[in-house]
Amino acid sequence: TPTFRIALIAGDGIGKEVMPEGLRVVLAAAERFGFELDCRTIEWASCDYYAQHGQMMPDDWKEQLRGVDALYFGAVGWPDTVPDHVSLWGSLLKFRREFDQYINLRPVRLFEGVPCPLAGRKPGDIDYLVVRENTEGEYTSLGGVMYEGTEREIVIQESVFSRHGTDRVLKYAYELAQSRKRKHLTVATKSNGIAISMPWWDGRADAVGRDYPDVTIDKQHIDILSARFVLQPTRFDVVVASNLFGDILSDLGPATTGTIGLAPSANLNPERKFPSLFEPVHGSAPDIYGQNIANPIAMIWSGALMLDFLTQGQGAGRAAHDAILGAIEAVLRDGPRTRDLGGTASTTEVGTAIAERV
Amino acid sequence: TPTFRIALIAGDGIGKEVMPEGLRVVLAAAERFGFELDCRTIEWASCDYYAQHGQMMPDDWKEQLRGVDALYFGAVGWPDTVPDHVSLWGSLLKFRREFDQYINLRPVRLFEGVPCPLAGRKPGDIDYLVVRENTEGEYTSLGGVMYEGTEREIVIQESVFSRHGTDRVLKYAYELAQSRKRKHLTVATKSNGIAISMPWWDGRADAVGRDYPDVTIDKQHIDILSARFVLQPTRFDVVVASNLFGDILSDLGPATTGTIGLAPSANLNPERKFPSLFEPVHGSAPDIYGQNIANPIAMIWSGALMLDFLTQGQGAGRAAHDAILGAIEAVLRDGPRTRDLGGTASTTEVGTAIAERV
Ligand SMILES: CC(C)[C@H](C(=O)O)[C@@H](O)C(=O)O
Ligand SMILES: CC(C)[C@H](C(=O)O)[C@@H](O)C(=O)O
Repeated sequence: TPTFRIALIAGDGIGKEVMPEGLRVVLAAAERFGFELDCRTIEWASCDYYAQHGQMMPDDWKEQLRGVDALYFGAVGWPDTVPDHVSLWGSLLKFRREFDQYINLRPVRLFEGVPCPLAGRKPGDIDYLVVRENTEGEYTSLGGVMYEGTEREIVIQESVFSRHGTDRVLKYAYELAQSRKRKHLTVATKSNGIAISMPWWDGRADAVGRDYPDVTIDKQHIDILSARFVLQPTRFDVVVASNLFGDILSDLGPATTGTIGLAPSANLNPERKFPSLFEPVHGSAPDIYGQNIANPIAMIWSGALMLDFLTQGQGAGRAAHDAILGAIEAVLRDGPRTRDLGGTASTTEVGTAIAERV
Repeated sequence: TPTFRIALIAGDGIGKEVMPEGLRVVLAAAERFGFELDCRTIEWASCDYYAQHGQMMPDDWKEQLRGVDALYFGAVGWPDTVPDHVSLWGSLLKFRREFDQYINLRPVRLFEGVPCPLAGRKPGDIDYLVVRENTEGEYTSLGGVMYEGTEREIVIQESVFSRHGTDRVLKYAYELAQSRKRKHLTVATKSNGIAISMPWWDGRADAVGRDYPDVTIDKQHIDILSARFVLQPTRFDVVVASNLFGDILSDLGPATTGTIGLAPSANLNPERKFPSLFEPVHGSAPDIYGQNIANPIAMIWSGALMLDFLTQGQGAGRAAHDAILGAIEAVLRDGPRTRDLGGTASTTEVGTAIAERV
């Protein structure tokens, strides 16, 4: 039987509560579809670890993860003890960059049983994928402050786009669009305001697109694009965006389906040279931690994306993914539900219910 | 009688159709409330002008506008003949910068009679102001391309924030919040990802806030903030944001109220050292130009903001503003309506109906 090696990194807060439920479900799927998951629990990449060691991860973190196929990741952050930019740049953002997980894939989908904040939309109406560049662009610590501490203070912040980094995310998005029925790609831009990088980005979208004549494309400025996520969500199929724009769109998209607490994500190194990372979009939620009331569905859905990616080309993976998604759909429709969806079930009850259906 | 000098710049496309209606209404208000508008029509700052002169504006544009108190501005852009970044950087963005219109004020409001894309929201639920920094930040043409045209191409895009530019927009926003009932300010940020400028921006928000102890503040990352515009719109009062974030939020906000075609904006130089500029958020809409079907309400509402700003401290201005807003409210509720709101009325009919009620 095919075996995949998984590192389990629960992290902080509700990461620790949703992890066991995610694991329960992926193990059930592995058993049913005939493959094995060889799992290792990692205690670092958490603010607890930081409290003891003054850093988020051990120096040899990469060696410790050698041979691992995927990181199954809860949530990092505990702002009361460690500032967010320290905990995140010291763990999650480090994984994304050093493991070259240059695709951040985030599905947006409207489910039966989840109250939709948009009027008159029904399941099936909203179903698209946001492909976010995940390693460069607007997220940098390059730049600095001049005349620091004085009235004349000036701050420069640099964004960095490479052709290498831009073309590969565009290519991935075109291929994904090509594999879908509608074959439509929306490219987020802001070339009318951000005058160097964005016109260049538009040019790369055209250049890469020449290899995909069957995919229709549509460049939209991020301001009106955000508006259309609300006003015309049915028009989207695959949406590709820079790191920052993708970050915004992949919170906004799930918000329009009422599922921001359910949204999963896949941080992929498609070449499989490095492990990929699968995590819920929600954070560690200190305010509800410790009560076993967090909704585990984002974690479970992320697990489904993990199995799909790991077993690609083997058939079983897509089946395992679809089985988990089917179970999520059924539980969202019929319950049990956690508090965020108007129910009273615990994290464990929802996880168990989904695992049983898989 | 107090007299204000206004330059009328219709620009392109439907800018030319909504301008006469805006003018009709502000003139009616001026007459009723006892002040005079001394109006001059400007033919440049349009793509027609560009076609003849190879530039958007004459070299002496500033001199031509000497003594003007406000620019009443339609819309610029005709991408078939002039690329957007050329037409916009050559006109609108130039006004914003050279006239130091550092505040871009954009009200977001849910009206009776406008179908709301959010489920279960009613007039009164959504009523906030986006204050956008309008002269610096992410909108620059600083940076460049290295290894141009090769596989190794790298693009650097710089954002520039000054303490001068940041503090003044924060100060304006705090004061605006202070003048309102709820006294609540939301500060858009992304300090967990954009590692130099945004933590600094957060620091300035705290520093400036020390002078406004009665205003509560709430810093939110732009990703989750966008989501909350959809999920929890009632929580907002005044929202302050950088140029880019403000651009996104001030399209997204109106979208959630179904009024993106109705949204007005004020580009202000609060010190009145330079003229301020008042324009609808919508663009020149080449697709519907020439049919007299564009909705003139954004232009009219922008005119109300103009009168309010011009006559501040005189009493009459706020009254003129409120009278126009009341007329807009009534027409949205009772008709006539243009096609975008399900009606059959022309641009002129709606403008006339509002003017009559003023
Ligand atoms: C046209 C464009 C440059 C402009 C901007 O981004 O500022 C517009 O979107 C706006 O919001 O006024
Ligand atoms: C926590 C933060 C740095 C992160 C990001 O912006 O990438 C998060 O918002 C996400 O979307 O995964």
